[in-house]
Amino acid sequence: MEQQAGRENEAQKKEFVKEITPRAVDYSQWYVDVILKTEMMDYAPVKGCMAIRPFGFAVWEKIQELLDRRIKETGHQNAYFPLFIPQSLLQKEAEHVEGFAPEVAWVTKGGGEVLSEPLVVRPTSEAIICDFYSRWIQSWRDLPVLINQWCNVVRWEKATRPFLRTSEFLWQEGHTCHRTEAEAEEEALKMLGVYKEFLETEMAIPVIAGRKTEREKFAGALRTYTVEGLMSDGRALQAGTSHNLGQHFARVFDITFMDQDDQLKHAWQTSWGVSTRLIGALIMVHGDDRGLVMPPRLAPIQAVIVPILSKKARDGVLAAARALAETLRRDLRVKLDDREEYSPGWKYNEWEMRGVPVRIEMGPRDLEKDQVILVRRDTGEREAVPRGGLPARLPALLEAIQRNLFEQALKFRQAHTRSGSDYREFAEIMERERGFFLASWCGRNECEAKVKEDTRATIRCIPFDVRAPHANCLVCGRKAKEAAYLARSY
Amino acid sequence: MEQQAGRENEAQKKEFVKEITPRAVDYSQWYVDVILKTEMMDYAPVKGCMAIRPFGFAVWEKIQELLDRRIKETGHQNAYFPLFIPQSLLQKEAEHVEGFAPEVAWVTKGGGEVLSEPLVVRPTSEAIICDFYSRWIQSWRDLPVLINQWCNVVRWEKATRPFLRTSEFLWQEGHTCHRTEAEAEEEALKMLGVYKEFLETEMAIPVIAGRKTEREKFAGALRTYTVEGLMSDGRALQAGTSHNLGQHFARVFDITFMDQDDQLKHAWQTSWGVSTRLIGALIMVHGDDRGLVMPPRLAPIQAVIVPILSKKARDGVLAAARALAETLRRDLRVKLDDREEYSPGWKYNEWEMRGVPVRIEMGPRDLEKDQVILVRRDTGEREAVPRGGLPARLPALLEAIQRNLFEQALKFRQAHTRSGSDYREFAEIMERERGFFLASWCGRNECEAKVKEDTRATIRCIPFDVRAPHANCLVCGRKAKEAAYLARSY
Repeated sequence: MEQQAGRENEAQKKEFVKEITPRAVDYSQWYVDVILKTEMMDYAPVKGCMAIRPFGFAVWEKIQELLDRRIKETGHQNAYFPLFIPQSLLQKEAEHVEGFAPEVAWVTKGGGEVLSEPLVVRPTSEAIICDFYSRWIQSWRDLPVLINQWCNVVRWEKATRPFLRTSEFLWQEGHTCHRTEAEAEEEALKMLGVYKEFLETEMAIPVIAGRKTEREKFAGALRTYTVEGLMSDGRALQAGTSHNLGQHFARVFDITFMDQDDQLKHAWQTSWGVSTRLIGALIMVHGDDRGLVMPPRLAPIQAVIVPILSKKARDGVLAAARALAETLRRDLRVKLDDREEYSPGWKYNEWEMRGVPVRIEMGPRDLEKDQVILVRRDTGEREAVPRGGLPARLPALLEAIQRNLFEQALKFRQAHTRSGSDYREFAEIMERERGFFLASWCGRNECEAKVKEDTRATIRCIPFDVRAPHANCLVCGRKAKEAAYLARSY
Repeated sequence: MEQQAGRENEAQKKEFVKEITPRAVDYSQWYVDVILKTEMMDYAPVKGCMAIRPFGFAVWEKIQELLDRRIKETGHQNAYFPLFIPQSLLQKEAEHVEGFAPEVAWVTKGGGEVLSEPLVVRPTSEAIICDFYSRWIQSWRDLPVLINQWCNVVRWEKATRPFLRTSEFLWQEGHTCHRTEAEAEEEALKMLGVYKEFLETEMAIPVIAGRKTEREKFAGALRTYTVEGLMSDGRALQAGTSHNLGQHFARVFDITFMDQDDQLKHAWQTSWGVSTRLIGALIMVHGDDRGLVMPPRLAPIQAVIVPILSKKARDGVLAAARALAETLRRDLRVKLDDREEYSPGWKYNEWEMRGVPVRIEMGPRDLEKDQVILVRRDTGEREAVPRGGLPARLPALLEAIQRNLFEQALKFRQAHTRSGSDYREFAEIMERERGFFLASWCGRNECEAKVKEDTRATIRCIPFDVRAPHANCLVCGRKAKEAAYLARSY
């Protein structure tokens, strides 16, 4: 991440509304322009780290609120586990350490002294949590254990991008233990379902659910499930994963329980998580050349009232705007922008850039007609609404915008999902317009590796309930085993 | 923290209700027994760290919910700043680095390589946040900046105690910037007031508000304000602090703004925080020899329904209990304990130990009489209430318990606050019954240092609006400058 971008001066800052690079010109620059100019984040003095500014953090708080409710409704409780993991614990599970050791940060000194054993700053918490679970679980009566934690994690990434891949990020990680393999499998799929429903309902992001290949699965997992979204540049983004850990960790961390049949057994485990990269997904799925577009259910501000203040009618319009704000706030998240040092036009641009779903304009003439003007962020449509009718109209409009954003994103995905059996055509699509490519696959690692090398695309998932569209593998032509969604990804 | 305590076996675990050491026998052991046996926390494999288990974390979630609401109502927004602080940033402010450098954890390796500059795991975030503020603030229009963050921090403590002093802990830290000294002072005092009101209203913990001495103030602050509670063993506990940072940090981090008068000025700053040590305060202020006592407003479970299930009346009682739980849950946090593998008596002990404010007993005879029995955790009083009257009676009873807990704690503090001018008597009190001692003080560092050396007590605060009770300094007999609350502390 480039440091300079965050250090622009004041003069530039005030000009921001004109300064978003169009997506067609440079998508990456558009993304960076949007998040800096809306003050969602800023670059940190430590490589790959960022500050999430109040405007960005408010989105994360909504994600937390709406997802945490679902996590609790499915019977989970929150807890907090230590940030530091002793080296010896991380090293217990071979696949896991191999997957994470190259990208961890090490604490080697504390309180002025060199530590006898180096500590890892958690890249994920399986190792430390399993250590606790081995002591907390003794009997089948202690199961299931259904715990989630919201926390920061650190992965020393080489190539970073704000929200999408940062050295430190925020996430939730669920860690559960079960009596049987079937229960663990049910849990892993249930939480994937929670993610899918959350993403589609609250974030208006349609996702494809499926299983990761052996090559792409979580280090130490039996099976990894994923939900994959499609960004507006045609790249896929892994929005959340859920792992059936089998008994791998239970065996190395000795998580055993006395079952009802008096046999000592290893627990079956799952883990699952989503992170602040969801904010990146939100920006890239819904944003346009004027900036952010927030889905109403997640938007920290659902509607902004911009009073049009002429000298003569100032007091009356302001009073009416304040009364309206108060009424609407009973049910909705409404901001009144009554700053007098900025013009209405400047404010329109500002709140459009920040993606507020509905703008409510209110001037002296509207007051005379006892009406307000509503302007949708997603379509730009304007409508006049009688003031008295607004408390009924606004929620309906917000729901319509929410639905429209989802449908738009779904249409985009459908238009950018191709299928076929011609490898050269596939490679060209991945190079040109990208998107998803639904193909048949023989299931062999060789073909998967070849695709990545040839096209930089990867198998995003083996979708549930989708048959192989062709008889033969896209890559080698051997008999196909299953369907696979391929894409370039973040 | 001793590791062994967390590793007791299952047999012991089931016997926990009998196993709390009485406070009079060994207060420290009582504290550890309570938090382990109620499963609030467990010791981590890293020295001085802990896991906060779901039962303890639910308390932290309530603290967050109720305090976050107040922080937002006073105009603040949440954000998130990086965990890692480059060494050079921490070292910018001399007093600050001197205060924190001896107790920080250092990251020296990342991604397999030795870092060119070591990173500090934040012990507090003034340095990193000021670095951002220096870029975010240019004009008086950018002020005030009113930001808070909830996060983890690390201080490499030598002597640790669960919740009270741990190497890693959770907290909130507010960081604000203002145009004038008066505004910063007002903010620092306002947030101290928020803490006091929160502690007294929600946690039922009376606190004394005042100013810290020069010796005890935050490293780098102009003035530190504090709220101090009294634990049931007579020790004081600093429950929250609020600092007027003056322009110290603004000068070294170059946080300047162009004021309305076209002069470039340094911002005036504050910071303020409370941490998971509040959970320790909660336990030590209200707990008794049977375990925890939760103030109803903060209690994750406000009432527990224990149905008394005989073979004959099982179904009817269970159905009635479930219906009751459903009704009460509309307004209150109510748990139905319908486990059949435990006896009602066992459950009574369990929920008493866990401090649930009200137990609702419901057996076949109560069903016949169309009543339930309410039992208060704080006084043990029982009352029969007609079932139909419960939705009205229960909230009133919870309010009465909340009030009683506060009044009990206040009475305890009053009974354990002495005053006087005899130094030897003071020293004896600090050794024997402890508590607060309100004294007159000359204001000199020598006397403050002598008190600590002689008695291990410290000046907890210079209280607001309290005159020096005697003409002369308790220690040296010179002319008194101000009043001071002295106590041994956590």
